[in-house]
Amino acid sequence: MKISQLSAASGVSQPTIKLYLREGLLPPGAKTHANQAAYSEAHVRRLGIIRTLTQVGGLSVASAKTVLDAIDSDLPLNWTFGLAQRAASPDVDGTDLSDADLARADDFLAGLTYHDGPGRFGVAKALRAMADAGLEADGAWRESYRKAAEIIGEADIDLIDRREGRLAKAETVVIGTVLGDALLAALRRAAQEHFSSQRYPSRSTETAP
Amino acid sequence: MKISQLSAASGVSQPTIKLYLREGLLPPGAKTHANQAAYSEAHVRRLGIIRTLTQVGGLSVASAKTVLDAIDSDLPLNWTFGLAQRAASPDVDGTDLSDADLARADDFLAGLTYHDGPGRFGVAKALRAMADAGLEADGAWRESYRKAAEIIGEADIDLIDRREGRLAKAETVVIGTVLGDALLAALRRAAQEHFSSQRYPSRSTETAP
Repeated sequence: MKISQLSAASGVSQPTIKLYLREGLLPPGAKTHANQAAYSEAHVRRLGIIRTLTQVGGLSVASAKTVLDAIDSDLPLNWTFGLAQRAASPDVDGTDLSDADLARADDFLAGLTYHDGPGRFGVAKALRAMADAGLEADGAWRESYRKAAEIIGEADIDLIDRREGRLAKAETVVIGTVLGDALLAALRRAAQEHFSSQRYPSRSTETAP
Repeated sequence: MKISQLSAASGVSQPTIKLYLREGLLPPGAKTHANQAAYSEAHVRRLGIIRTLTQVGGLSVASAKTVLDAIDSDLPLNWTFGLAQRAASPDVDGTDLSDADLARADDFLAGLTYHDGPGRFGVAKALRAMADAGLEADGAWRESYRKAAEIIGEADIDLIDRREGRLAKAETVVIGTVLGDALLAALRRAAQEHFSSQRYPSRSTETAP
């Protein structure tokens, strides 16, 4: 298909497609004339992934390129995971974390295998913020969050296992990392609403704000 | 304590404290002289909550005020929940969702009690983005996410139940809504890292990026 048809099929404007081609996020089409190239369904699919990364995940074009390069590479999948997690958590680093902050996270995560990265640092930051805000997250609550995270983490890896071929697996790593956060946050809200309306039926939720 | 001491105890600068006083996020101190007021531990605590909302949750001062007003009111807790969820998800509304998008969310959420809001809309948006990106989220994966969300949603309500008095409960609703997302996203990353390194030990994760 021509670039105009690729634009129509993907919902991405031609100038944006040209930017992605120039920056190397989208591979070039097959040359048909001096100034024309033919694009395929693979280009439509890749544009869908780029849109997810930039529009839903909020990644910069440069970060998206790093992640797409990891998809196309032959890096081990756990490296691709690491790159995707870092790209999707640009503000989570360890620079302002104290040893006590990290120890709190390590205590929470005991029994899991992990290294320095968005997981450990993010848990440390969240737990510190809770302590700062005076919210005691007690053992029962922590245990539930931990259990839920294990169910989800394992489900993510199982989903990847069920995909055939390295490309599909790596795409799933990246898309799942970026979109899973949004899905999970929304599911949590719906579940809170459910249990809250069961537990606190003091006024009809029909008219709740 | 004086405002200088309140600033030292809370880590919030005096100009910012004055802004919060002016905008009504922080209640006034007890007047001691014409130009002086005495602040209490309750002010320190409230500043911790304001900092969580604005710095971690990314809420605007106006949104933070709405949520703080809900904490101080005698609204039913499920209303406070609704307000906190909306404030913490400013970009999640239903305006660009089709009936098919909403039906997909309702299918996922079947069996839960919920209404229009960040939960339903956010699930619809995330599932649509997954479909657009060509990621088939199969039944087993969905089932795990759903189960994990129910564990978490119920744990959140249980935590609130264990807090004494309406103020502490409402504070927990608000802080938990804002900080729980960040904690959960980080826990998910750590759990992915754990299961990924177990499943794909193709290269040492010690040196993974």
